[in-house]
Amino acid sequence: MSKKLTSRADDYSKWYNELVVKADMAENSAVRGCMVIKPYGFAIWEKIQAELDRMFKETGHQNAYFPLFVPKSLFEAEEKNAEGFAKECAIVTHYRLQNDPDNKGKLRVDPEAKLEEELVVRPTSEAIIWNTYKGWIQSYRDLPILVNQWANVVRWEMRTRLFLRTAEFLWQEGHTAHATETEAIKEAELMNNVYATFVENFMAIPVIKGIKTESERFAGAVETYCIEALMQDGKALQAGTSHFLGQNFAKAFDVKFANKDGKQDYVWATSWGVSTRLMGALIMTHSDDNGLVLPPSLAPNQVVIVPIYKSEEQLEAISKLVNIIMDELRSKGISVKYDDRNTLRPGAKFAQHELQGVPLRISIGPKDLENGTVELARRDTLTKEVISVDNLTSKVVALMEEIQNSLYSKALQFRDNHITEVDDFDTFKQVLESKGGFISAHWDGTEETELKIKELTKATIRCIPIDSKEEKGTCVYSGNPSKQRVLFAKAY
Amino acid sequence: MSKKLTSRADDYSKWYNELVVKADMAENSAVRGCMVIKPYGFAIWEKIQAELDRMFKETGHQNAYFPLFVPKSLFEAEEKNAEGFAKECAIVTHYRLQNDPDNKGKLRVDPEAKLEEELVVRPTSEAIIWNTYKGWIQSYRDLPILVNQWANVVRWEMRTRLFLRTAEFLWQEGHTAHATETEAIKEAELMNNVYATFVENFMAIPVIKGIKTESERFAGAVETYCIEALMQDGKALQAGTSHFLGQNFAKAFDVKFANKDGKQDYVWATSWGVSTRLMGALIMTHSDDNGLVLPPSLAPNQVVIVPIYKSEEQLEAISKLVNIIMDELRSKGISVKYDDRNTLRPGAKFAQHELQGVPLRISIGPKDLENGTVELARRDTLTKEVISVDNLTSKVVALMEEIQNSLYSKALQFRDNHITEVDDFDTFKQVLESKGGFISAHWDGTEETELKIKELTKATIRCIPIDSKEEKGTCVYSGNPSKQRVLFAKAY
Repeated sequence: MSKKLTSRADDYSKWYNELVVKADMAENSAVRGCMVIKPYGFAIWEKIQAELDRMFKETGHQNAYFPLFVPKSLFEAEEKNAEGFAKECAIVTHYRLQNDPDNKGKLRVDPEAKLEEELVVRPTSEAIIWNTYKGWIQSYRDLPILVNQWANVVRWEMRTRLFLRTAEFLWQEGHTAHATETEAIKEAELMNNVYATFVENFMAIPVIKGIKTESERFAGAVETYCIEALMQDGKALQAGTSHFLGQNFAKAFDVKFANKDGKQDYVWATSWGVSTRLMGALIMTHSDDNGLVLPPSLAPNQVVIVPIYKSEEQLEAISKLVNIIMDELRSKGISVKYDDRNTLRPGAKFAQHELQGVPLRISIGPKDLENGTVELARRDTLTKEVISVDNLTSKVVALMEEIQNSLYSKALQFRDNHITEVDDFDTFKQVLESKGGFISAHWDGTEETELKIKELTKATIRCIPIDSKEEKGTCVYSGNPSKQRVLFAKAY
Repeated sequence: MSKKLTSRADDYSKWYNELVVKADMAENSAVRGCMVIKPYGFAIWEKIQAELDRMFKETGHQNAYFPLFVPKSLFEAEEKNAEGFAKECAIVTHYRLQNDPDNKGKLRVDPEAKLEEELVVRPTSEAIIWNTYKGWIQSYRDLPILVNQWANVVRWEMRTRLFLRTAEFLWQEGHTAHATETEAIKEAELMNNVYATFVENFMAIPVIKGIKTESERFAGAVETYCIEALMQDGKALQAGTSHFLGQNFAKAFDVKFANKDGKQDYVWATSWGVSTRLMGALIMTHSDDNGLVLPPSLAPNQVVIVPIYKSEEQLEAISKLVNIIMDELRSKGISVKYDDRNTLRPGAKFAQHELQGVPLRISIGPKDLENGTVELARRDTLTKEVISVDNLTSKVVALMEEIQNSLYSKALQFRDNHITEVDDFDTFKQVLESKGGFISAHWDGTEETELKIKELTKATIRCIPIDSKEEKGTCVYSGNPSKQRVLFAKAY
């Protein structure tokens, strides 16, 4: 095994980068800003996908697939959307390579194979999808359309970090079409709630549901709903967004329908997405200086069993017991792996499983066999106990739930301890620098103030929380009147 | 509902194109050669994915994800592979759009945002993956690597058809790395067998397992294993390929490992893939002039229930019974949909479900309620029968298996009736034109003869069947000696 991780206290950012690579989650590739998601990391992403997909279907959505490329003329049709993504998109201009006459054995772009119209690699798919929906929608009977796609998208970001911000990333994007404004808003809210439920229950990450200010809105949206999480370094992370798009895309692509009275109207839209960025949130919420900590619901292996032996006979006896244990655990729906590799010592195996965040480790040695015991080690608390093998299955089942809940509680406590109500700008700056986290403060509602605060402190308005109460006050920066507190934070 | 399909006899190709669109499987998009896979078509693809993914994992493979883009310098590293794909690849040259100064409201490629090195949109991922594996492999202990990815790829084909040949398509690509040649060959064979099992058992499409001739091999492979299916128009379709890549990619990317004796050697490789092309094979194998015919294992809805009623009370009574029936069917693992839309008459519903290939339709009217019966209609045979509702569940369960088997048998019989042994070139040409199908003929083993036959007849060698016996003979074209018959056909 490789040497110890940098500690979070020493350098949080370095700790994160090392952890992602050493735990075999992902690594940088030969393509600037693009990552390779390694099997262990991808197994976690598959669990995220499977559960979200189930939740989408349960709420009436179907999957489909739309092209990777967006012709430039479609891309630019919805002006604000185009403006928001034009500066960072990969553009296909040619469709052939040829032998390079000046450089034997090398290829070059064939200058004669230039596309008539450039193709943008999708940074998001509203344009190509609404251009398609035009053909699908004639009347109210064709609505709603409730479609999702799992896809890769490309945003040519200049500064990238594994999972958190990569030039290519994986995501799902839901794109729905509705007959009424009310129904579309309801859909956007529903999906933001689905995201919140998933992230809290499944990823054990508490989130705050809110809406974005105009300047933080998705390009082309009328309203952006979001869920915001807090990382251990006190920075916020936007974990998912759901947009009410009004009739903006319907107008840009001329998508009308005949309503029940036979009148033509533009269709109402939503879009919503979460991405492999969630993997970054997962890592930064729960993990510690020893490596990854995973909630049982997302762990590729919930339990790993390590045999401790000096002879082949001991190994055989242990393996016999292990097979019984594994059958029992699996019958309870628990995923378990027997790590009987003979190329590594137990200590090295322990270190690897700790680094990779396996929630529960069971080790069994010759003494355990004699005593009818096993040793249980919990990854989240780093505690060990010896228990009777007779109680093992029920104990493990109980621990799965306990660990899941405990991770959530711990993260919730941390998050709640890092929401600070602040009423003056000096305190604002001081709290932001010393403690970080969310700062709940009054804001006068102007973009001017929002940008000024960002300029001075790097903090942005993460959201206007949905469940916050009206409360009269004065803006923490301008002193102008305000009706409601909003949440500021530095963010990923 | 739209008017009738063109019949297969009138115009097979037109029949296919109409069917794909009218059954709501897929449609062409605004991007040349790229398709939109619609929810109904995608639901079938999801079933294909789920089962294959299960089979891959059962045989020890894990999923991962590698970048969409391949830098040109990596793309060209394995010369034959590069040569094979260079002529039809999409190339990203720029990373930003800007406002077009000559054309208000329009965007143009920012000439200053030119990439230092062009990026090829992956037509296949050997290059980017082997460049990555270089960092993963030091010793035999790091082998084998058994990785698969589900991804989109782009091949800029000039003539495209929905599912069969599209500029962008979805596929899975397995990429494995091994310490020995024998092990790699075994893996390539194993995966070709997995494909054969899947396509036969799950898609009800009989296939012939074989190896490709040198000229039909994957660019960069030492040996290409394949499964070949036969469509109803007598043309063959390559349904999956598995490649033994030798050490070609290891050498191109300098991927060496220390074997057990501590000696350095290049790593042995395989790759294997199936794509959304399988959807085309599915459609063209089973469907008829009334529309899609689906094997129960792939049908998004295996059973649809249509109520026939004149009053709300009748509908209520029928719905009550339907709920009981659905619960029972679902408890047996059968997917069932109740089509109680009040916007369509039963006849229109029947037509739609027929067009979309729902294996079994149950209709229930007031007389059925009185008599304790339902009407069952089988999509594959277009036969109907009235049965007692008491026997319904067991009957449906039995029919699911019967339909699956019957579709396979029918396709097998058709395929076997279309393998013709031929020993002279005049008969070869005549059979090819009159009957089509596979022609089993002797071939002298030279590329010259193979290309000449292709030029004269458009037939290619689909494969050298794996289970064919050695048999001395003379080449059907050149008259030179031959050891074995091979299969010729016109192909998709």
